[in-house]
Amino acid sequence: MSRPNDRLNNEMRQLKMQAGFVKNPEGSVLVQTGNTIVLCSAMVEEKVPPFLKGTGSGWVTAEYSMLPAATEARTPREASRGKITGRTSEIQRLIGRSLRAVVDLTSLGERTIWLDCDVLQADGGTRTASISGSFVALYLALYRIKEKGILAEIPLIDYVAATSVGIVNNVPLLDLEYTEDSQAEVDMNVVMTGRGDFVEIQGTAEGKPFSRQEMDNLLGLAEKGISEIIALQAQTIAKEVGYVPQFTYSHEE
Amino acid sequence: MSRPNDRLNNEMRQLKMQAGFVKNPEGSVLVQTGNTIVLCSAMVEEKVPPFLKGTGSGWVTAEYSMLPAATEARTPREASRGKITGRTSEIQRLIGRSLRAVVDLTSLGERTIWLDCDVLQADGGTRTASISGSFVALYLALYRIKEKGILAEIPLIDYVAATSVGIVNNVPLLDLEYTEDSQAEVDMNVVMTGRGDFVEIQGTAEGKPFSRQEMDNLLGLAEKGISEIIALQAQTIAKEVGYVPQFTYSHEE
Amino acid sequence: MSRPNDRLNNEMRQLKMQAGFVKNPEGSVLVQTGNTIVLCSAMVEEKVPPFLKGTGSGWVTAEYSMLPAATEARTPREASRGKITGRTSEIQRLIGRSLRAVVDLTSLGERTIWLDCDVLQADGGTRTASISGSFVALYLALYRIKEKGILAEIPLIDYVAATSVGIVNNVPLLDLEYTEDSQAEVDMNVVMTGRGDFVEIQGTAEGKPFSRQEMDNLLGLAEKGISEIIALQAQTIAKEVGYVPQFTYSHEE
Amino acid sequence: MSRPNDRLNNEMRQLKMQAGFVKNPEGSVLVQTGNTIVLCSAMVEEKVPPFLKGTGSGWVTAEYSMLPAATEARTPREASRGKITGRTSEIQRLIGRSLRAVVDLTSLGERTIWLDCDVLQADGGTRTASISGSFVALYLALYRIKEKGILAEIPLIDYVAATSVGIVNNVPLLDLEYTEDSQAEVDMNVVMTGRGDFVEIQGTAEGKPFSRQEMDNLLGLAEKGISEIIALQAQTIAKEVGYVPQFTYSHEE
Amino acid sequence: MSRPNDRLNNEMRQLKMQAGFVKNPEGSVLVQTGNTIVLCSAMVEEKVPPFLKGTGSGWVTAEYSMLPAATEARTPREASRGKITGRTSEIQRLIGRSLRAVVDLTSLGERTIWLDCDVLQADGGTRTASISGSFVALYLALYRIKEKGILAEIPLIDYVAATSVGIVNNVPLLDLEYTEDSQAEVDMNVVMTGRGDFVEIQGTAEGKPFSRQEMDNLLGLAEKGISEIIALQAQTIAKEVGYVPQFTYSHEE
Amino acid sequence: MSRPNDRLNNEMRQLKMQAGFVKNPEGSVLVQTGNTIVLCSAMVEEKVPPFLKGTGSGWVTAEYSMLPAATEARTPREASRGKITGRTSEIQRLIGRSLRAVVDLTSLGERTIWLDCDVLQADGGTRTASISGSFVALYLALYRIKEKGILAEIPLIDYVAATSVGIVNNVPLLDLEYTEDSQAEVDMNVVMTGRGDFVEIQGTAEGKPFSRQEMDNLLGLAEKGISEIIALQAQTIAKEVGYVPQFTYSHEE
Repeated sequence: MSRPNDRLNNEMRQLKMQAGFVKNPEGSVLVQTGNTIVLCSAMVEEKVPPFLKGTGSGWVTAEYSMLPAATEARTPREASRGKITGRTSEIQRLIGRSLRAVVDLTSLGERTIWLDCDVLQADGGTRTASISGSFVALYLALYRIKEKGILAEIPLIDYVAATSVGIVNNVPLLDLEYTEDSQAEVDMNVVMTGRGDFVEIQGTAEGKPFSRQEMDNLLGLAEKGISEIIALQAQTIAKEVGYVPQFTYSHEE
Repeated sequence: MSRPNDRLNNEMRQLKMQAGFVKNPEGSVLVQTGNTIVLCSAMVEEKVPPFLKGTGSGWVTAEYSMLPAATEARTPREASRGKITGRTSEIQRLIGRSLRAVVDLTSLGERTIWLDCDVLQADGGTRTASISGSFVALYLALYRIKEKGILAEIPLIDYVAATSVGIVNNVPLLDLEYTEDSQAEVDMNVVMTGRGDFVEIQGTAEGKPFSRQEMDNLLGLAEKGISEIIALQAQTIAKEVGYVPQFTYSHEE
Repeated sequence: MSRPNDRLNNEMRQLKMQAGFVKNPEGSVLVQTGNTIVLCSAMVEEKVPPFLKGTGSGWVTAEYSMLPAATEARTPREASRGKITGRTSEIQRLIGRSLRAVVDLTSLGERTIWLDCDVLQADGGTRTASISGSFVALYLALYRIKEKGILAEIPLIDYVAATSVGIVNNVPLLDLEYTEDSQAEVDMNVVMTGRGDFVEIQGTAEGKPFSRQEMDNLLGLAEKGISEIIALQAQTIAKEVGYVPQFTYSHEE
Repeated sequence: MSRPNDRLNNEMRQLKMQAGFVKNPEGSVLVQTGNTIVLCSAMVEEKVPPFLKGTGSGWVTAEYSMLPAATEARTPREASRGKITGRTSEIQRLIGRSLRAVVDLTSLGERTIWLDCDVLQADGGTRTASISGSFVALYLALYRIKEKGILAEIPLIDYVAATSVGIVNNVPLLDLEYTEDSQAEVDMNVVMTGRGDFVEIQGTAEGKPFSRQEMDNLLGLAEKGISEIIALQAQTIAKEVGYVPQFTYSHEE
Repeated sequence: MSRPNDRLNNEMRQLKMQAGFVKNPEGSVLVQTGNTIVLCSAMVEEKVPPFLKGTGSGWVTAEYSMLPAATEARTPREASRGKITGRTSEIQRLIGRSLRAVVDLTSLGERTIWLDCDVLQADGGTRTASISGSFVALYLALYRIKEKGILAEIPLIDYVAATSVGIVNNVPLLDLEYTEDSQAEVDMNVVMTGRGDFVEIQGTAEGKPFSRQEMDNLLGLAEKGISEIIALQAQTIAKEVGYVPQFTYSHEE
Repeated sequence: MSRPNDRLNNEMRQLKMQAGFVKNPEGSVLVQTGNTIVLCSAMVEEKVPPFLKGTGSGWVTAEYSMLPAATEARTPREASRGKITGRTSEIQRLIGRSLRAVVDLTSLGERTIWLDCDVLQADGGTRTASISGSFVALYLALYRIKEKGILAEIPLIDYVAATSVGIVNNVPLLDLEYTEDSQAEVDMNVVMTGRGDFVEIQGTAEGKPFSRQEMDNLLGLAEKGISEIIALQAQTIAKEVGYVPQFTYSHEE
């Protein structure tokens, strides 16, 4: 059974990143992976949530939303329903955690970076595209405030990016699109750093439980995909700032 | 005192409309007027609100939202606040009323058209851009379901478009951008049809009350601007459907 | 086609204002226009909203509500529904803006005037009656705190009053009652000052768009009606404070 | 220590009831007891809550609200706060229960009577005034639908009325006004029928617990006050319907 | 007609109290009365609500909740419904008032005691069991902070406990279980102190109004039941702290 | 560095399960793992959510809540806050998914099983204890309705249980308690079936990203722990129903 557009099992959809799509946020990028389109923005606010006041530490938080017209059948607006769904809440917590994993919050100082991920078009993988795009928006925002002299260094430790993998009809696949995702027996979101370590693994058996061997195969696919995404992140940032970000991992010794 | 970019007092900002920006809704258009960017979508739902059930009549309703990163200082998300603000509610009611004014709801039949206006970037005039863009999205959505044989005719009576006018430092100006709007003494939103009649006039003295003469001057500017917008609506639709929509106004005789 | 009670097209319903209907607010008036009855109160609070703290400026804000039994079919209570409707929000914003247009907020000092408009009986024109009544309640409240020595002068610039006009069966009418309003093709709310300038114009084509000529006719009717309301405002206030308020418009030179 | 206005310990404040204050509800009465003013309305809805559908039984429910300007310091509107307070919820449950105690819900048939009690001015005893007034509004509403032929008989079993009693400085007092209520050691609301039986007793020790003897004294005061209220209810209804309601208590044998 | 398990009309269900059921709160007790099971906890928070700040006075407040599985048909969770019901709000206000009646809030100092009553299994009398259990939890919490030296004395004035009484088939009964409660003509909750005074009496005629004689009979039953509960409270506390609490009522002279 | 109570790195805390702790739900169990105590109930409702109506399929859904006194510092009640937190929503989605993974929803028929997990005392691992306990409650509920003849067979495919593992000070540990969890660099929740397959893996780097090798070590610990839990589930169920549940995994061939 072949995939749509004859994609190979270990092949990503076409991925594009357009930095500076909107001009008000300190950093922004329009991420497009196949038919999934997400606008990621990073905005700096010069205060922190109450639990961090006076600690010297900063914060990174994310909000995620789907435009009503992003899906085939219109998705009712959460603002109109008066509350966000459990799914949205879960996704924004995941995005926030994933990005904080590569930020040195102490060096950031007492300020908050708001990451806004708004899905303009949804075709599977919106949460992982949000993570991958948020990294670029975040880097650009931190770069901009460093240029203004507000920060001495960009307080990032490594790249971070994400993809989804899954098992469809017993076959492990990389980067599921919606028609695949909706019939997957196993669905796994993987978040990794540039150095190749895991930040988050969320694997769910939608249809039937999966074995250790199957999980190993899925992780292999995810590693391949994420290394490709990170290459594009590096290139997108380089086009804006004039150099490719390098990280030395000195914090681990 | 000159306007930003040396605009003339009766000159619109540069206006662009890109149809089909997203693919799921039956009609969509990305409207750009100066630095204001709004994504307008029209989606068809095969049911009507309770108060119309069994009447044979259709409905057109609008929702409006600002992305958090659309403004210079981040705008908190209404879904997170748990309710929409009075401003949003007022704007979505205005958009809905304005579009319904040119729809023959009986010919539409028992279905609802949802107009979603999401502001990606805000620099004044987001509500009027939403109205002007929604007309294009609405036309395209109705065209598409007519092509599918669901409707015999496109149940529209006329074009509808909107612009803002205002008085800044005692000078009447067309199409206010944000820096002008924020210091205007009078702010007026005008919604007109292709035939030149008014659908809605909302004039507010922010600073000092205005005279009848001043109002007449403002309406003259609005007429000029709206005729230019309607020309672009016609051209944008024509590029998609292959002809320029014409209306005969037969309903008025 | 004649109007109910053989009213002339340019004739207001009978208008009554009873000051001091309740004793706790600094100012209060029961406004009755035909069968529409609104209780307007003005209360002084010695603090301002956060956005004005430390600016030296005061604030005037309005809340509007319909008693459930005010309408023929019972209107569900917004407190029970857990949120105010878009219509209510729009009306209270309109009342607030209209009254602020004649208040010198700097002279008011860092205090808030709360205007509460509670509709006891609704027969069309509740929002315009709320504005006209709020002016009287506001004047009386400011007078009372001036008498207490809290203010040196009453920080008002002019009278403000409002009425509705509309087109029913192609005939322009002044001061629509409910049965007229519900079948009007055009519905317009006009807010004017004592000097004859506009504070707010909100015209909506409910049935068919209206021409510039029609709008001019409507504004003529509104001017006539509003001058009559202002005369009654002056008389109602005079009975309470012993003089007819005069304004010199010195702020405009 | 004497009471305000030299009231005797067992003396009610002056009580007035004005039927037909507003015209839309089937029954309405403006109740005034001293400076407490409550507008009570009864409206008929031809359906019942889900738990009664198909049972043949009707329902009587109450809603209570305080206008913001009813109190000396403005009371924030519950609709603006987005939810009703515990106090309001408790009062509306009490009013509903008290009135249902004298209604034969089966004879009422599958319809709901909505009792709306809106406090225009608050000076103690608003919940008991609401109960006493609601009975009159309810009788008038039932009378009106009986006159229309919808009901064969008025499905009421007895009068019902309420008053508050309390202990202030060790002295039992009838019908507390606000200044008394706020310093009472014991506060008791008593709801009784025309026949002299209890429908509800709610006694609370605000300051110190009370003995059985003290409770007996309070109940004696309440009986006196309630018999006076019922006399005024009878007279108010008689003025509207032309006869004094009599009840035979046949349901108890 | 006999009661379930051949209980006598003036006989309580079997009552058990297990102190220290959970270890985090300063005081906790699992109360079991027949099949009704309530977990009562008392936790100390070193701050007071805004209205008490700077007054030197403390506060005692209660929250009550029913686990969904406590009832035969599952009770929807209030957190999922987004608001607490009127019934819950009324019960938690009752519990709070009842306990505050025996606390010397000034001696407590500026701290809040939170009483949490969570119903694990409901078979009638959950609110009165909550009051009786809360007293034990409260005593133990105050004892613990006194042991830590935070308080010089336990700021309690007396015992407080509660039971329900009612009339079923014209027979006055003590301590109603659910099957009795659901068919009671009169339902009365009585809260009393160790000295035998009333803190709260809430009697409601569910079916038919009740006479003064009937009320007296009910109060007699309540007195008997409450004296038995207080005996068990004393014994439960004694097992934990090593002595039976005694109160001198010196505050009343 | 040793663990509290000298636990070995691959040693579970003491685990207890007490079936039938409350009597209203069809199945219930009190799970205790160290100081964490969760009451799990399973209740049967004879209807399904709208999206399943008419499909013949049943549903299993979970709700999770923490009693305010379960934690050292009191946790505010979500019902009082008016909404559930993102954390709660995430946990209840996880519990629901995990249990549905072993239910044959078609054989269940059009009914819903509500799993309620209420945390009485929290010391780490509440979500995994909820999953392990819910399986027992679910089995007992299904057994009971099978005994009533409502189901022909118990529609379960396998056991399911969960534990947490993590890395603290670079050491992989099984079954983290709160003091460990709060300083863990990696925190992973693992849900497995009796057959040894994964239902869900959620691994999060709280401190620093983790390698593939570290993940393998953690999964090894989880497998050990979960097999011990499943042994206790089997024994607990056996005590109630008289036999040890066996599953044949026939659905996978």
